[in-house]
Amino acid sequence: MTDESGIDSVRVLADLSALRAIGAYKTGVHRPTFSKPHMRSLEWLVRKLPEASLAAEIDGIGNVLGTSSKVGPKLLAGSHLESQNFAGWLDGPLGVIYALEAARVINSDSTVNGAVEVAAWCDEEGHFGHFLGSRSYIDEITEADIDAARDRNSDRTMRQALQEVGLAGVARAKAERGRHVGYLEAHIEQGRTLEGAGLTIGVVASIVGIWQYRITFTGEQNHAGTTLMKDRKDAGLALTRLCVAIDDHFHPACGPRTVWTTGRISLDPGAPSIIPGRAEMLFQIRDDDPAVVERLELLLQELAAEAGRKCRCSVDVARIRTGAPALMDERFQQAIEDAASSFAAGKSLRMPSAAGHDAQMLAKIMPAGMLFVPSIGGISHHWSENTADADIVTGVEVFVDACRRLLA
Amino acid sequence: MTDESGIDSVRVLADLSALRAIGAYKTGVHRPTFSKPHMRSLEWLVRKLPEASLAAEIDGIGNVLGTSSKVGPKLLAGSHLESQNFAGWLDGPLGVIYALEAARVINSDSTVNGAVEVAAWCDEEGHFGHFLGSRSYIDEITEADIDAARDRNSDRTMRQALQEVGLAGVARAKAERGRHVGYLEAHIEQGRTLEGAGLTIGVVASIVGIWQYRITFTGEQNHAGTTLMKDRKDAGLALTRLCVAIDDHFHPACGPRTVWTTGRISLDPGAPSIIPGRAEMLFQIRDDDPAVVERLELLLQELAAEAGRKCRCSVDVARIRTGAPALMDERFQQAIEDAASSFAAGKSLRMPSAAGHDAQMLAKIMPAGMLFVPSIGGISHHWSENTADADIVTGVEVFVDACRRLLA
Repeated sequence: MTDESGIDSVRVLADLSALRAIGAYKTGVHRPTFSKPHMRSLEWLVRKLPEASLAAEIDGIGNVLGTSSKVGPKLLAGSHLESQNFAGWLDGPLGVIYALEAARVINSDSTVNGAVEVAAWCDEEGHFGHFLGSRSYIDEITEADIDAARDRNSDRTMRQALQEVGLAGVARAKAERGRHVGYLEAHIEQGRTLEGAGLTIGVVASIVGIWQYRITFTGEQNHAGTTLMKDRKDAGLALTRLCVAIDDHFHPACGPRTVWTTGRISLDPGAPSIIPGRAEMLFQIRDDDPAVVERLELLLQELAAEAGRKCRCSVDVARIRTGAPALMDERFQQAIEDAASSFAAGKSLRMPSAAGHDAQMLAKIMPAGMLFVPSIGGISHHWSENTADADIVTGVEVFVDACRRLLA
Repeated sequence: MTDESGIDSVRVLADLSALRAIGAYKTGVHRPTFSKPHMRSLEWLVRKLPEASLAAEIDGIGNVLGTSSKVGPKLLAGSHLESQNFAGWLDGPLGVIYALEAARVINSDSTVNGAVEVAAWCDEEGHFGHFLGSRSYIDEITEADIDAARDRNSDRTMRQALQEVGLAGVARAKAERGRHVGYLEAHIEQGRTLEGAGLTIGVVASIVGIWQYRITFTGEQNHAGTTLMKDRKDAGLALTRLCVAIDDHFHPACGPRTVWTTGRISLDPGAPSIIPGRAEMLFQIRDDDPAVVERLELLLQELAAEAGRKCRCSVDVARIRTGAPALMDERFQQAIEDAASSFAAGKSLRMPSAAGHDAQMLAKIMPAGMLFVPSIGGISHHWSENTADADIVTGVEVFVDACRRLLA
């Protein structure tokens, strides 16, 4: 099944299937960061990379980096292997296997001056933090950040997790400035834009910024039977009032592509017979225009204060993540577009990414580009996420061709 | 410190302090059902009961029952020893220690014909179910109910918990019909009625019913970045809309003492970058008038359907607990009132209990009564819950005297 370009599409699909078998859940995977299946997937990749003449190991933050000793320019390519909980099989692995295939084809091709190096960045899905792996590589993570990181699925600290998986004390790999011509990442679109327009390749122009907030209401914990309604300071009620107020007031104030989400709510103590004394929510805004978010953040603070007042609770709105939209490099966009014209003529589109990706971190220190393939029904972060095999194959053809162009 | 009635108030306060030391948390306790501190508290009581000439053991559902071989009528008295999470020191233990003191005083008093028997009912606080201990004793719990019960703090089944604490296979004690003249329980009020009126003793006339609902919204789990606002089916948003609608519409429809509470909310999967596909809340209504609750339940169903429609989610409203107000026995109320006239003249009040208590279960098979002491600031189900020492002492005097009257 190797075509004239040297790409073996059957091998690509087989590798993706092999990764799906590690932590399989229905037709997807459950492979949270530093879980046993996640570690097995990293070890699988370390064993695979020599096929592409790459030397590989897992670094001290769980990144896998395959490095080449071939002379000439190096292009860095990759994505991630951990998943959201009970989520899709391609979100991450697609980009890693495309990078592996590009490295297998190009690194053994003596007509190409240079090599593709492969990365699997740890914790893109944010179980412990915010792009910890790629940010460690670009030297944005301190030891104190690691000390503070905790598993959002449990009370486990990141230090405990690193200890358990045998990475405590292992050095973290840092980018060698000037080594790479840039970074290329492929990913499923996770939306309906390509599918809706009947297209096959998305050429990412920018990645939206993500602003995240921890909003905490504090009222008075009390007995759900003996405390009269008029005497209550119900922190849970204040929180739900804020959620509804956001939905009622954000629409007229937002931009054309703004999205916002309350992904987690917890009431404390969370028992049916106790009025919650404390309630916390994680709230997120995404946009490619910081001015829009600035406006919405002010509105959020007003609405939170009003919800608190109404329920006689205090409220704290803490911004825990500040977004910065990332622009993809023009030469990279052109290389993907040119490659698409050979393998998917008339089927590509320049578009923003509404999802965050490691490419936005790498873009801080080197030229970066991203390629999207369609998501069936736009479904993402769910085990039923999928992409047609034909689109997976077209995607790898475009990806490898773009790598050749970027190394030329 | 023993007074003429034989009561040793210092011993009572010391016993309460000893129990507070088991699983202490700040000035309260953290003693969830079948936790190590809970089991230690049961063992403590088993060791104490012989002081009152009672033979005791822990039965197969975690009840402690101290039985007497003294001739004459028997009065059953008690409460519970487990706590809500990180909650107060007196909620439960007060009634157990009052019963222990009454048994110590009365069972050794040859002028009294009969004895006080002591019970600590397991899981009144509902970590695994709904009054499992007292309902087991009145023969309302089947083995299948135990099979189905789960710890609300974890995924542990009740069978696993019973295994871990060594109670698997131990027989459950059942009430011997005709053995007891009735059941008497003392408890902190958990509200502000006594304190607000400057009173010391509450004579409980009835215990309100508790109706409980599990309300589940189902929408579509998706990516929080790539899914446009207009395409979302956000189950979490639907749930918060219901909470606010309840607060907006229940007040004009409820009775004078109705209370309602959303004590727990969970979004699935609960990650900041995922639109919740499923959202669940535990909702509770308490009233002493079933007709009021019937009206509110219809309203609840309407509001839930409307919140679901508005967010394009389906909704299921499941009633998981059906309340039935329990009337306290008139002779028991009179005995407490007469006792109060000796030790707290002019300081007692007949009142309903807005909290549920094991007495409502025992009332199904024998006459039952309850006595309240004041709660400082009405605070309950929180570690800062407390009662003035003087009120604790007056309470035990009234309690023991009421026991004497009920055995006379």
